[in-house]
Amino acid sequence: MTVFPESEFLSPLKKLRDERPLVHVLTNDVVQEITADVLLAAGASPAMVVAPEESGTFAGIANGVLINIGTPTAERIRAMHCAADAANAKSTPWVLDPVAAGGIPWRDDVIRSFVAKRPTVIRGNASEIRALAGFSSAGKGVDSCDTSDSALEAAELLARTVPTVVHVTGETDYVTDGERTVSVAGGHEMATLVVGTGCSLSALVAAFAAVTDDRVAAAAAAAMLAKRAAEYAAQHAKAPGSFHVHYIDGLYLTGRTE
Amino acid sequence: MTVFPESEFLSPLKKLRDERPLVHVLTNDVVQEITADVLLAAGASPAMVVAPEESGTFAGIANGVLINIGTPTAERIRAMHCAADAANAKSTPWVLDPVAAGGIPWRDDVIRSFVAKRPTVIRGNASEIRALAGFSSAGKGVDSCDTSDSALEAAELLARTVPTVVHVTGETDYVTDGERTVSVAGGHEMATLVVGTGCSLSALVAAFAAVTDDRVAAAAAAAMLAKRAAEYAAQHAKAPGSFHVHYIDGLYLTGRTE
Amino acid sequence: MTVFPESEFLSPLKKLRDERPLVHVLTNDVVQEITADVLLAAGASPAMVVAPEESGTFAGIANGVLINIGTPTAERIRAMHCAADAANAKSTPWVLDPVAAGGIPWRDDVIRSFVAKRPTVIRGNASEIRALAGFSSAGKGVDSCDTSDSALEAAELLARTVPTVVHVTGETDYVTDGERTVSVAGGHEMATLVVGTGCSLSALVAAFAAVTDDRVAAAAAAAMLAKRAAEYAAQHAKAPGSFHVHYIDGLYLTGRTE
Repeated sequence: MTVFPESEFLSPLKKLRDERPLVHVLTNDVVQEITADVLLAAGASPAMVVAPEESGTFAGIANGVLINIGTPTAERIRAMHCAADAANAKSTPWVLDPVAAGGIPWRDDVIRSFVAKRPTVIRGNASEIRALAGFSSAGKGVDSCDTSDSALEAAELLARTVPTVVHVTGETDYVTDGERTVSVAGGHEMATLVVGTGCSLSALVAAFAAVTDDRVAAAAAAAMLAKRAAEYAAQHAKAPGSFHVHYIDGLYLTGRTE
Repeated sequence: MTVFPESEFLSPLKKLRDERPLVHVLTNDVVQEITADVLLAAGASPAMVVAPEESGTFAGIANGVLINIGTPTAERIRAMHCAADAANAKSTPWVLDPVAAGGIPWRDDVIRSFVAKRPTVIRGNASEIRALAGFSSAGKGVDSCDTSDSALEAAELLARTVPTVVHVTGETDYVTDGERTVSVAGGHEMATLVVGTGCSLSALVAAFAAVTDDRVAAAAAAAMLAKRAAEYAAQHAKAPGSFHVHYIDGLYLTGRTE
Repeated sequence: MTVFPESEFLSPLKKLRDERPLVHVLTNDVVQEITADVLLAAGASPAMVVAPEESGTFAGIANGVLINIGTPTAERIRAMHCAADAANAKSTPWVLDPVAAGGIPWRDDVIRSFVAKRPTVIRGNASEIRALAGFSSAGKGVDSCDTSDSALEAAELLARTVPTVVHVTGETDYVTDGERTVSVAGGHEMATLVVGTGCSLSALVAAFAAVTDDRVAAAAAAAMLAKRAAEYAAQHAKAPGSFHVHYIDGLYLTGRTE
């Protein structure tokens, strides 16, 4: 395991802002706005196209795709499968965010149907990654009650099994392809009191993966951007409402004021 | 009628923050994010699970449930009924927010189908509560054109008829079980210019009801928290955009800086 | 072509705040909250009623209607057609926002089915308006890669063909009925980094059209309000998170502090 170095972060960030990748977002009902705002502030171009009639076509145009299983419905799941298939057909990177994995059997079946399609990256909290790898987990609704350290072994196993890159978030984020593992420390716990900071990080991973062939580095760069923004927010805010505002500002300002 | 005392507010607030109840939110498309942020800032744990295939299972796990009839569709209504039934089966408290009751016959039928399942608390504005009790009402879309004072008699009648606890909001909030009525004054009218402050108050009622057996006190405590946060926001903001931010901050800071 | 004068802006703005028109919003999943907050801050009364069972009834009650083709699904499209038909039956002004027109054939068919019903105003970015008029366009997802100047001819042609009023936004906004064209300059480019500033402008056009018989003036007044608010935001914010907050504040404060 190595610490992801700051020096490997600024180059993909610059590339993201120069290329402005189009990220096709299929996410839950709760975090649509913050996810779009996070991508825009970071420098990417978000688009939410959710009907099964057009989600596959649009995924074929996009540079990266996010599939977040937060509030799945039968129709939305069909749209997500169209998008995953189109991304795979074009070798477009796509990220799976397995929200609340390990909680409800029906939802776990939905999540497994996407894992089977080999996402480019799976990004989840510790409880979700432990559950996906077959470990016991202590999630509470959409929140994790496990630490990211406790999910590291699960992440590496899951990465080798699928195979894919697994990104587990927490006080320290870990990104692994099962062989190589990097860590990204920092951030601030108040981010957990703003809905969508986790879900939108998955969208950032899709954006970085769209401009970075090394997917471990892509996810780690996304994690570092989110953690820098959270640190900026913590310096400027004392409560979650203003933390949210400064978090978005931090995503925009990071790397611009060198 | 008695004024709900500050002294009965801080104890349930502390309990809410200690126990961090899981609140299952089935609400309208417009206020999903602010509702989650309000619950997180206050100290609860929100989760939106909306598919009929899993909403009943999840309601059985949650500590409190919110059903908000803001943007109902046939599928969402089915999911809401699954959740209400599961909550009733487990004696989990659930709150009904009858958005725009009295406006459209189809919607009124939907609302009545949930009233018939005896929600733990019904939380609405004056026009909605008057309409539900069979009084004339002057709603305009989702906004009330009646004062909460004018809905007090309707609230008490409705509480006795269902029977349930009714919480009518306005310049002064009233909470009644039909026998006992308490009032909570304060707040700020600029809160009506931020979408979702009312809808998310219903979620706070579900959170307090999850940790407070006295449901009248639970709703009154939620009302007091919202009003304190609005007063904090009014001190720090001069317009609705910043009012929103400071309102969330106020929910977090209230009771922490004693 | 004439510059829309400040003097013709304050009178409809005052009328909007005095009459507080009820705007029925059928928009995409991403911008529901900001659209409601924008309308409330400006002085209108938003309501989102989306089920096909009630959208027509509600459109018949509303003073203005917005139909935004951002995230259409089969059910939502049916609800939108009910609303457009009801608006036409009552001569209630309605605005069409043809999000991402020119990108996907299925979506273009959906958009054309609404253009055929002769919206009161079509509000789009340059790429969308060019595409609708049959010109080549360079949209990227939901963003425009064309300038508003380059869409002026297309806007005038489209306005004459439908016929309707066309409002194309950009660094300078143009509003035209095909004969008369007015321009509104100003604003700030950071608005393009906050999701929903364009979509919610279409809602503002519906609000102004509800209180202004001259639809060219209505759209131009909405554009001027949005541009003044963006300028206010740019004075107070250096990044998109705080820009969003101050933009909402600017909508509220514009014209109040004379």
